[in-house]
Amino acid sequence: MRISELSERSGIAVATIKYYLREGLLPPGERTGPNQARYGDEHLRRLRLIRALIEVGGLPVATVGDVLEAVDTPDLPMFNLLGVVQGSLTAPAPSASDAEWERAHETVRAEMDRRSWSMTPAAPAIEALTAVLVRAAQLGYPDWGESALPAYFDGARIVAETDVATALAAGERDAIVDVVVVHTVLGDTALAAIRRIAQAQVSLETLAMGTEPST
Amino acid sequence: MRISELSERSGIAVATIKYYLREGLLPPGERTGPNQARYGDEHLRRLRLIRALIEVGGLPVATVGDVLEAVDTPDLPMFNLLGVVQGSLTAPAPSASDAEWERAHETVRAEMDRRSWSMTPAAPAIEALTAVLVRAAQLGYPDWGESALPAYFDGARIVAETDVATALAAGERDAIVDVVVVHTVLGDTALAAIRRIAQAQVSLETLAMGTEPST
Repeated sequence: MRISELSERSGIAVATIKYYLREGLLPPGERTGPNQARYGDEHLRRLRLIRALIEVGGLPVATVGDVLEAVDTPDLPMFNLLGVVQGSLTAPAPSASDAEWERAHETVRAEMDRRSWSMTPAAPAIEALTAVLVRAAQLGYPDWGESALPAYFDGARIVAETDVATALAAGERDAIVDVVVVHTVLGDTALAAIRRIAQAQVSLETLAMGTEPST
Repeated sequence: MRISELSERSGIAVATIKYYLREGLLPPGERTGPNQARYGDEHLRRLRLIRALIEVGGLPVATVGDVLEAVDTPDLPMFNLLGVVQGSLTAPAPSASDAEWERAHETVRAEMDRRSWSMTPAAPAIEALTAVLVRAAQLGYPDWGESALPAYFDGARIVAETDVATALAAGERDAIVDVVVVHTVLGDTALAAIRRIAQAQVSLETLAMGTEPST
């Protein structure tokens, strides 16, 4: 297809596609004339992925380049690929004393150890979680992490199993990364909303009825 | 205590406290002179709540006023109070056709009905969830909601039970709202991070080992 059709089918402006070509985010098409090239379905798929990373993931263009490089590395094991994508979507840590940080990190490590989960593939997310625990302590809730983590890990595991199954069902490498990015960002928002819905339901059961929440 | 001590204990600048007094977010202290007033623990608690709503919840001052009005309404049932606080933290919906919106809303309603959950106390969060499903459909994943919601609801329920138990354990009304606000925002970030940790673990089990994830 010509660049105009690529633009129409991807929903991305021609000028933007040309920018992505210049930046190397999109591989060149097959040259068919001095100012013409032909593009295939792989270009459409790549554009859709770029759009997901930038529009939904909010990634800067440079980071998009890193992620795409990982996508293009055939030897990179799949879970490392998912890790690269996920790592690029996790926020940096706030400032805190070493002692505060160590205490929070120990709480997270203890929960991971209790379940025999591997620390390495999830390093950026572990850092983000530790940052939240530090922030909670700074706001006056130093024990919140220890009391909340068991249930949070149980609930998140159930969600993650459906996430990974959905991502793997997509089958083809680009589509898997696409699904992971879209689902990570959309999934966060959905999970936050559903958590509020569930809190309202549990509150209703506990407070309005005067009984313990049903499990 | 004098306003200088109130400032020191709450971590909020005197000028900011005076602003909150002018805006009616903070009730006046007991007048002890032409330019002096005395404040009590209830003022400290109220300042802490305001700080949580603004700093952690990111609420604009006008919304903080609405939430505090609900806090000050003694007849308002607790779960409505939690609902007001939660509603103020949920994002608005994107633009979509009526058909797109109705389809997404039906998916959410079906899941709620399947569990006999009440739609009313969670109306803002249901709207937010519906918006995510609309967005997913627009990005090319029209069936994602239907396939993901069962696990998301199961996982969120487990998390919500610990959230509500923690909030109720705080005991006193201001503290409960404080806990709900802080935990809603921090909890979202924590849950998102833990979901990534769990995805990495499930991916590791599924892909690196070549076996089904253990439940």
